[in-house]
Amino acid sequence: MTGVKIATIGGGSSYTPELMEGFIKRYEELPIREIWLVDVEAGREKLEIVGAMAQRMWDASPYKVKVHLTMDRKEALQGADFVTTQFRVGLLEARIKDERIPAYYGMLGQETNGAGGMFKAFRTIPVILDIVEDMKRYCPDAWLVNFANPSGMVTEAVVRYGKWDKVIGLCNVPVMATMLEPGLIGKETDELIYKFAGLNHFHWHKVADNHGQDVTLDLIDKMYQEDNGLPKNIYDIPFERDLLEQMKMIPCAYHRYYYQEEEMLAHALEEYQTIGTRGQQVKQTENELFELYKDPNLNYKPEQLLQRGGAYYSDAACETIASIYANKETQIVVSTKNEGAVPDLPADCVVEVTAYIGAQGARNVAFGPLPTAERGWLQVMKAMELLTIEAAVTGDYGTALQAFTLNPLIVSGATGKRVMDELFIAHKEFLPNFAETIAKLEAEGVTVQDEIARDLSLVTAG
Amino acid sequence: MTGVKIATIGGGSSYTPELMEGFIKRYEELPIREIWLVDVEAGREKLEIVGAMAQRMWDASPYKVKVHLTMDRKEALQGADFVTTQFRVGLLEARIKDERIPAYYGMLGQETNGAGGMFKAFRTIPVILDIVEDMKRYCPDAWLVNFANPSGMVTEAVVRYGKWDKVIGLCNVPVMATMLEPGLIGKETDELIYKFAGLNHFHWHKVADNHGQDVTLDLIDKMYQEDNGLPKNIYDIPFERDLLEQMKMIPCAYHRYYYQEEEMLAHALEEYQTIGTRGQQVKQTENELFELYKDPNLNYKPEQLLQRGGAYYSDAACETIASIYANKETQIVVSTKNEGAVPDLPADCVVEVTAYIGAQGARNVAFGPLPTAERGWLQVMKAMELLTIEAAVTGDYGTALQAFTLNPLIVSGATGKRVMDELFIAHKEFLPNFAETIAKLEAEGVTVQDEIARDLSLVTAG
Amino acid sequence: MTGVKIATIGGGSSYTPELMEGFIKRYEELPIREIWLVDVEAGREKLEIVGAMAQRMWDASPYKVKVHLTMDRKEALQGADFVTTQFRVGLLEARIKDERIPAYYGMLGQETNGAGGMFKAFRTIPVILDIVEDMKRYCPDAWLVNFANPSGMVTEAVVRYGKWDKVIGLCNVPVMATMLEPGLIGKETDELIYKFAGLNHFHWHKVADNHGQDVTLDLIDKMYQEDNGLPKNIYDIPFERDLLEQMKMIPCAYHRYYYQEEEMLAHALEEYQTIGTRGQQVKQTENELFELYKDPNLNYKPEQLLQRGGAYYSDAACETIASIYANKETQIVVSTKNEGAVPDLPADCVVEVTAYIGAQGARNVAFGPLPTAERGWLQVMKAMELLTIEAAVTGDYGTALQAFTLNPLIVSGATGKRVMDELFIAHKEFLPNFAETIAKLEAEGVTVQDEIARDLSLVTAG
Amino acid sequence: MTGVKIATIGGGSSYTPELMEGFIKRYEELPIREIWLVDVEAGREKLEIVGAMAQRMWDASPYKVKVHLTMDRKEALQGADFVTTQFRVGLLEARIKDERIPAYYGMLGQETNGAGGMFKAFRTIPVILDIVEDMKRYCPDAWLVNFANPSGMVTEAVVRYGKWDKVIGLCNVPVMATMLEPGLIGKETDELIYKFAGLNHFHWHKVADNHGQDVTLDLIDKMYQEDNGLPKNIYDIPFERDLLEQMKMIPCAYHRYYYQEEEMLAHALEEYQTIGTRGQQVKQTENELFELYKDPNLNYKPEQLLQRGGAYYSDAACETIASIYANKETQIVVSTKNEGAVPDLPADCVVEVTAYIGAQGARNVAFGPLPTAERGWLQVMKAMELLTIEAAVTGDYGTALQAFTLNPLIVSGATGKRVMDELFIAHKEFLPNFAETIAKLEAEGVTVQDEIARDLSLVTAG
Repeated sequence: MTGVKIATIGGGSSYTPELMEGFIKRYEELPIREIWLVDVEAGREKLEIVGAMAQRMWDASPYKVKVHLTMDRKEALQGADFVTTQFRVGLLEARIKDERIPAYYGMLGQETNGAGGMFKAFRTIPVILDIVEDMKRYCPDAWLVNFANPSGMVTEAVVRYGKWDKVIGLCNVPVMATMLEPGLIGKETDELIYKFAGLNHFHWHKVADNHGQDVTLDLIDKMYQEDNGLPKNIYDIPFERDLLEQMKMIPCAYHRYYYQEEEMLAHALEEYQTIGTRGQQVKQTENELFELYKDPNLNYKPEQLLQRGGAYYSDAACETIASIYANKETQIVVSTKNEGAVPDLPADCVVEVTAYIGAQGARNVAFGPLPTAERGWLQVMKAMELLTIEAAVTGDYGTALQAFTLNPLIVSGATGKRVMDELFIAHKEFLPNFAETIAKLEAEGVTVQDEIARDLSLVTAG
Repeated sequence: MTGVKIATIGGGSSYTPELMEGFIKRYEELPIREIWLVDVEAGREKLEIVGAMAQRMWDASPYKVKVHLTMDRKEALQGADFVTTQFRVGLLEARIKDERIPAYYGMLGQETNGAGGMFKAFRTIPVILDIVEDMKRYCPDAWLVNFANPSGMVTEAVVRYGKWDKVIGLCNVPVMATMLEPGLIGKETDELIYKFAGLNHFHWHKVADNHGQDVTLDLIDKMYQEDNGLPKNIYDIPFERDLLEQMKMIPCAYHRYYYQEEEMLAHALEEYQTIGTRGQQVKQTENELFELYKDPNLNYKPEQLLQRGGAYYSDAACETIASIYANKETQIVVSTKNEGAVPDLPADCVVEVTAYIGAQGARNVAFGPLPTAERGWLQVMKAMELLTIEAAVTGDYGTALQAFTLNPLIVSGATGKRVMDELFIAHKEFLPNFAETIAKLEAEGVTVQDEIARDLSLVTAG
Repeated sequence: MTGVKIATIGGGSSYTPELMEGFIKRYEELPIREIWLVDVEAGREKLEIVGAMAQRMWDASPYKVKVHLTMDRKEALQGADFVTTQFRVGLLEARIKDERIPAYYGMLGQETNGAGGMFKAFRTIPVILDIVEDMKRYCPDAWLVNFANPSGMVTEAVVRYGKWDKVIGLCNVPVMATMLEPGLIGKETDELIYKFAGLNHFHWHKVADNHGQDVTLDLIDKMYQEDNGLPKNIYDIPFERDLLEQMKMIPCAYHRYYYQEEEMLAHALEEYQTIGTRGQQVKQTENELFELYKDPNLNYKPEQLLQRGGAYYSDAACETIASIYANKETQIVVSTKNEGAVPDLPADCVVEVTAYIGAQGARNVAFGPLPTAERGWLQVMKAMELLTIEAAVTGDYGTALQAFTLNPLIVSGATGKRVMDELFIAHKEFLPNFAETIAKLEAEGVTVQDEIARDLSLVTAG
Repeated sequence: MTGVKIATIGGGSSYTPELMEGFIKRYEELPIREIWLVDVEAGREKLEIVGAMAQRMWDASPYKVKVHLTMDRKEALQGADFVTTQFRVGLLEARIKDERIPAYYGMLGQETNGAGGMFKAFRTIPVILDIVEDMKRYCPDAWLVNFANPSGMVTEAVVRYGKWDKVIGLCNVPVMATMLEPGLIGKETDELIYKFAGLNHFHWHKVADNHGQDVTLDLIDKMYQEDNGLPKNIYDIPFERDLLEQMKMIPCAYHRYYYQEEEMLAHALEEYQTIGTRGQQVKQTENELFELYKDPNLNYKPEQLLQRGGAYYSDAACETIASIYANKETQIVVSTKNEGAVPDLPADCVVEVTAYIGAQGARNVAFGPLPTAERGWLQVMKAMELLTIEAAVTGDYGTALQAFTLNPLIVSGATGKRVMDELFIAHKEFLPNFAETIAKLEAEGVTVQDEIARDLSLVTAG
């Protein structure tokens, strides 16, 4: 059988149209035969809406591609060439809990590598490991292209516990940096040389022009004069300039949580108390998107999706798949096994770095040692990630508490522990590995205090 | 000339009587010829009081030892065999500023490795490096035994920038652990086997009985039943038990600031608002001690010194000196060049570990890799230390800000930066390397907001 | 039951009397209840001779200790407190083959880490791993004290593949250095400070006097003036002096094979062609020893044993056992898990270093990074060891060939491979893991060319 | 001024025409303004011959480029954009000594990383460091593209001691592998994915097809059926197949010296005793080449240059320069600062790896940890290189002897030392850093024993 089979887990996601657009755009180099969108029963309605929309997009294209919808993951995986994962265990509702429960106690939820992100990892990792087991059986030669968040930890879990090396983790943050920054100094993207290193949502980069001259400080200079092109989902306050000039690198948008914790917390609490957390806002956007998707005449990705926050994720996924398939050696920033590229971290852990993507996956560009401060940040964050993943797999409460205590965004002590305990209660149904812990907490009478997190039917009211 | 010459920089310290007691106790193995107490002009009065007291102690002993008092460091260093350093640049007044300025903004000052400790490092490191230069000239074969805080960073600076390897950094925290813990399980100190690793005020330990059986968890168990023997200067709230059981090690008292940050901050702010910070309390104790020392009949270390907080520091120093002199191979926990003992950190940096102390200095016991969480903590703290030391030496503002931002006890953002800026202003006279930075801040109109930190004459009123 | 139970595997060894002497000497601190000497059927006669002798030694002492003889390892291990291993798979006959087959082709056999030592590892490792499995069942709390050679590789195999950490590997080479060197500069052993690092039969050391002054170069100087106290089994040619002065360390006697390969090879070939290899010489000595041991009046260790070559091995074993039992923290040079003590090698591999031996086993002294040349030697030798051990466990021919090719004492190419192939044939009965390889070689007609190695009955004639 | 200025040190080399051909071929992407060929007085005649030939080549091209000839390096460097180094200190005569003196004693000279290569390093490194100092002054923005051998050690010296990071070291061995291997399995070069790692003349590679499937073992299989495409200057005996199948990588041609030392030595000695060493053969070829070059009608690179042995070196240099200039990101295997690409070696040393070459120089592909055997080889060879370079810079005899002793191609002992001593005498005029050592050896009466090495006028007779 010729042509490529794609299986997309979490196919009912609002991002699926971007994914389709990306595949259609690249059809000549990536000749797709069939696409399987998989979702769980709870997401059936969305899957059907977005699936129909996806088929319309292909039908409007010059290419004959069948989009299959299924609740049966194994059927979708059977013989797949590429598996993409974009599922959200517990949907946006879970994210809202991740954000609101810490906020109730005056803390940052931060859904990627704060308290919220850690619980997202607790929910997601057992599922991705299940998927990997199925892949070993149904499509042992396939590549897994993950953009389920927290993308770095999920990729690390796949490599470390799933023992599956054919995986690439993606993120849209570097994409946006390389799209928006060059304009600041009057350049095109392909006139600059980028080098990224770090972890998912926690990387830095350096930029040079095409004569090899480092222009990082020039870019930093411009950033303080103009809009610096942040992802839509990050509150856009400026970094302390002395910090950036000392490191001579550009941090990623998410570094704000670490470098300007005070302001980011204040902003998060303000939203919590007024318009609702980012998850609540996204839910509104998503509802609107799905309304659009229902339109039987809509057969292209609507502009509004760009507002959603994760734009370019799916396009990066399509480019990654095309690069593997056609051995293109395109430069992409991915989560991948280190292999020495970031020598401050063990060679066998997952990092996010500039890589040339080809038929063998990622060929990481060796970044070399980081400066002292960034080395410290990197090492503490990787330790936090490893503990989080270990807790997700073992269900050990002490390990989870160690990860919480080590996480720079969480203030250690009784309240932090309380936040963790409430999150366990709140996500009970998606944390089977922690069943014993949760039973114990329930017996102790721990209950979720934030009203909305406890009763998500109130969200729409909010 | 036979007998040992000791030079003590910061000789006017209230700890000097403990040091004398330690030397008198060990005279048979460490035959001292003369002791030189050095201090700066501002400390002349204290030096004279404590110097007279020191001489009385020797006079009451069976040994003829002359205690010399001087403001001329070079005279004291000339031909010294051991140099001990216990000076405090800016005296207790500086510590009060270190504590109050952050507290004014609701932050922890923490005078060892928090914001306060970092400024203590900024003040102390240039002075210790000067002393090392003098030692190269006047006593190139001497050992430097440091207990000026922050002891770990000061020792690192001596090794890394002073290029002086004959240095041992001391701390009383491990001493107290090994004195107080055995009783919890009905043992004597010499019936247990201790192994410490980490950094100064940031180490963990494991304990086994003399059959080789690990008893760390038993000790942890007892700690939750009884008083766990903390240093007097640390607010004594219990660690989260799940944390300790997961790590299977005992953290040091100062780990409370990291593992129970919320409670430690609350306590510090409460003291700030009521009885005054720890520095203010100590100042009161010190005043009382010096009143006692003036008594011409007092010729022994008074009981009240134990209340001071740093008990056993000086005794550890005496034991270290005796062990080097007599090649005793006594087990002591010291700050020393790593050499691989803590493989999670570079071999050339300073760590705090169990060592056998003899004529060649420390023979570190290789601890082996730490568990994931502790490795993360250790690496981020060592990075913070290295940045702090680098800033102290270079006077670079950006480097100082990186260190501040990385420090887990400091909330990053505008307020944190403000705290740092006010501390620069407050300690202006002791920070010549930062002169340019301070001039700039003054031009910007930065002034200290806390009334007492601004006008220390108010302390006594407090 | 009070008192210690010792089980000695390879109890029929000629060294057993030294072991008994060591235990008798230390009885007051190591109260032994019973000793079990185990051997295989082929060694029954020797076991009976040496066992009777051992009992006579105890009977002549003030202590009532029963020496049990058995062929049943499990009975001996049951409830043992310490297990010592001194067995030789294939006896001295195997060693003679290890030496003669390479020598036939003009190569060094070198029975510790040359071609001979590698085959000794191939024979010994499967047996030691069997013993470890038995220990897990019959004496899970016991310590394993190994002096079966190649002691370092055997210890590494126990830790890495046996997953058994309660093991100490011993060697007499450092013992002899610390006994013989001090006299060269008019000192006693306890007036000097020793620090060893490296691998078994491949370590270096530094020496300081008890004022902390490095005296290594003085010792080197004296060594070129006087007899430098080598083990009896090493041909005593001087090291190139420039080499030692550059490294500022003293190599071990076995380093001659690496630093003076030409001369050591010439000497080995000369012996091969005249008086017979070292193994043949030792066999003669051993025969004489067993004749002595038969004397029913002999109840003490005879002087002649010192000529045997491995003197002090057994005494080091007794001291190690006593130090563990009584938590003595004696300084001994042992093979033990690195834990960072030699930072140029991974923390989880086995090294030979100075350690303080107590109830928890070895507390390694961190040696710090080695100079460039020694680092290179160390890393290549550890790689060779790891490959040899891996081949011993997996029986993989390619891995064995990689180890052979990497070994600095073996010239790579057709002859080296031929030597390896003949050694496989020669040791067929003791290499079950390599059965497939050996069958293939036999089918290809590989036969042993050296007459004596092929027919050991000719040895006595030699 | 537009266009690129190239300065070529050692411009009189017989390779220069290949370099010219490479530049002419790439003129459209690398618009050269002027080329400066520099040489020393002793090479004036050759420079003039090859310089005239070079100008004829340009004149026959569509491009106007002036080839300048000079003995004044500074004039050539002034404002250069790229400096290429292809000089041979002591010319081919020195190489002949490097080969013959060891051969006289039955040892391998091996002119790249054997005894000969080490002396080549001793001669070359002080000169390259001088050139770097001149570059700092006269063309501080230029790139240094080195193919003076031993290319890896020379590049390491430039980075480590010259503190000059804008350097790329080249080698033709990987070029030839990627040109010749694909044909063995019916592929084109661009249908395969190559990954190299190691050191210069000491690297391994893996190959995959453009579906990502590893085909290394298939290639190995074919190599045993067909001609395996070796460089002309390496005696072509097959590797032991079991070795290659175990490592699952393809070694480089020069690995024969390490993996098949016996046969390579035998072959070298046979040539030594018959047709003369490789250097002598090359000298003959070179003489013929220069005769050709004198032909005023020859204006293209003659076929015979391919026989010379170093073919494609110069073309690789041209491609490297064009890639830097035009930021092409071409994949080339180069000697470059590690930066983690080979995690078994320190991040700050020079390795030879696959890299993407662009305006910032090499972006190394992270290879990840090597298997045990190759890690051992790599670490010992890098240690040998570092010692050799250190000796070249310091002139320390003990360091040189350590390097000699560690080198796997040199048998340690009296003869090895004798070989080293004679090489010092033989190269006296080019080893100013070793003046003291050489004076001492002369005083001891060391003289070169090989007749031809002593009197090179005999070469032509040979």
